[in-house]
Amino acid sequence: MFDNKDKSSTPLDKIGEFGLIKQLTENFKVYHKDTFKGVGDDAAVLNASKLQTLITTDLLIEGVHFDLAYMPLKHLGYKAVIVNLSDLYAMNAEAKQITVSIAVSNRFPLEAIKELYSGIKLACDTYQVDLIGGDTTSSTKGLLISITAIGEAKKEEIVYRSGAKKNDLLVVTGDLAAAYLGLQVLEREKQVFQINPESQPDLTKYSYLIERQLKPEARKDIVQILKDLKVKPTSMIDISDGLSSEILHLCEQSQVGCNLFEEKIPLDPQVIATCEEFNLESTTVALSSGEDYELLFTIDQKDYDKIKGNPNFTVIGHMTNKNEGTHLITRANQKVEIIAQGWRSF
Amino acid sequence: MFDNKDKSSTPLDKIGEFGLIKQLTENFKVYHKDTFKGVGDDAAVLNASKLQTLITTDLLIEGVHFDLAYMPLKHLGYKAVIVNLSDLYAMNAEAKQITVSIAVSNRFPLEAIKELYSGIKLACDTYQVDLIGGDTTSSTKGLLISITAIGEAKKEEIVYRSGAKKNDLLVVTGDLAAAYLGLQVLEREKQVFQINPESQPDLTKYSYLIERQLKPEARKDIVQILKDLKVKPTSMIDISDGLSSEILHLCEQSQVGCNLFEEKIPLDPQVIATCEEFNLESTTVALSSGEDYELLFTIDQKDYDKIKGNPNFTVIGHMTNKNEGTHLITRANQKVEIIAQGWRSF
Repeated sequence: MFDNKDKSSTPLDKIGEFGLIKQLTENFKVYHKDTFKGVGDDAAVLNASKLQTLITTDLLIEGVHFDLAYMPLKHLGYKAVIVNLSDLYAMNAEAKQITVSIAVSNRFPLEAIKELYSGIKLACDTYQVDLIGGDTTSSTKGLLISITAIGEAKKEEIVYRSGAKKNDLLVVTGDLAAAYLGLQVLEREKQVFQINPESQPDLTKYSYLIERQLKPEARKDIVQILKDLKVKPTSMIDISDGLSSEILHLCEQSQVGCNLFEEKIPLDPQVIATCEEFNLESTTVALSSGEDYELLFTIDQKDYDKIKGNPNFTVIGHMTNKNEGTHLITRANQKVEIIAQGWRSF
Repeated sequence: MFDNKDKSSTPLDKIGEFGLIKQLTENFKVYHKDTFKGVGDDAAVLNASKLQTLITTDLLIEGVHFDLAYMPLKHLGYKAVIVNLSDLYAMNAEAKQITVSIAVSNRFPLEAIKELYSGIKLACDTYQVDLIGGDTTSSTKGLLISITAIGEAKKEEIVYRSGAKKNDLLVVTGDLAAAYLGLQVLEREKQVFQINPESQPDLTKYSYLIERQLKPEARKDIVQILKDLKVKPTSMIDISDGLSSEILHLCEQSQVGCNLFEEKIPLDPQVIATCEEFNLESTTVALSSGEDYELLFTIDQKDYDKIKGNPNFTVIGHMTNKNEGTHLITRANQKVEIIAQGWRSF
């Protein structure tokens, strides 16, 4: 699905900005009636809405957030959209539109940028999101992508980081740490390749990890599942910077404490096996590694029966009084303070 | 107003992303009731609106769009906001919110980023716009700023590029080419400075040009003036890429032709004098130079009496049938085809 057989090369300065925008955006579908006017004027126009509008934005920089040595451009385009949509789903909202701005150095021909946009389009089609605008320019070094995503939700349905209460249960979707370990595997293979370009690595046993790193998904499904279950989380955040960092955000903004149980943290068998292989402590990785794009939320205890047994959800802790602090309860029943270990770009 | 006396220096990695965001955004005021939730969650939230929402975005890259050798950081922050607001005013809309994403290399200390944000804040205060979110990260080279601006307008008030009709008058606000000449003066001074750092240039006679380059304003006032005059343009665009390029956009999207009269193009006396000094043809500069952030629009002839004599407006031409083409009528009454000469970032 993600292969590019087209090896032709057209320099961007032969096309110009407006020709480029036309070529990149002409095949995008419009999914939402309220996208009144998309690409092609000074601004995009959205119809009036009875719902609240949500806005989020993320910046991805080559050499900081991604390495094109192992991140194919189509995957990068896909992931850049996912990162933003994840923030909207973390508000319990629907994603509707995106703007995409890119800056590229002259080492990228038209075909490379089209490949990037094919990933952006795949994400738009998969998540039913409309591309409504952007900016396209040259850079003095490398590639950067700035995406703004626009969503909507009923006012009473939006979930903030600040609503967690004492005794609420702390719940996480999916499993953690796989994206980070996928990155470690890819980094290692890059180094092997640099020494021996002939090596043919068998990455089958890391397939889940690599997919989580190269083609993450955002949990749009969770917003619908929670609606179907009639569960409104009291607080929610997406896990982009690591579990410990996100827990601290929820605790700080909700003015509560938290007990997190080590034995409850959901890990895929590939994560456990690869942690052993790399001599990493899986709990530490889950706490501090980013890019999982799972949702972390709190629910009132009375909602426990509604989510109990659902394979999407794992209860990993509960909220406490603020003055009790934020702790990990280890398998050995030790209480360790959680400190921010999240991924930092500085 | 734009001086920075504070010469202390705090490396960004001592503060971390969240500390940085807090420091940068804590003094921003909120001007609009419909800004329901700004910085501090996964996404910002805007109240439901009976009006249409407009979205525009622009990317500014060091070494491509600005040179910090003569662009003070506070001015850069101000200008980065202006560029985006101008796009909203060009739709005849009100600007309400912005998101600001920045990437900075480690050569920028906290104080530099604060200086940048002081310019962003000044623009927010001057134009009554709310900062509602963004992203802050490191870059491998230089500074880049990505801003998304959100506006609103009644559906029937929004002006697109596509509504110009044959016989409509072509009108421009303010005067043209000053920002480009300001840049030429600054580039020359930079070179002089590199040869002789002791030189004390007297830039008084270029004051208007330099101000137009370093502290441009967006024509929010025009949106109000047109409302007061009860004039709704048939099409409108802002002049960021040069008059010829913008005329071609209006003509292409409105499916009309145009006659532009050279003698009508409004130029400031400093522009004329500096063109002579630099041996430049002022009409060519006006046609091809960008960054004026004036508005170019078309009106029905019946509205002529309403704008006649208003110092903000100059009628510079009229629209024709599409098959008559797009022409400049020179002072010598020659007809020259207008081709895109606008500023290109590729």
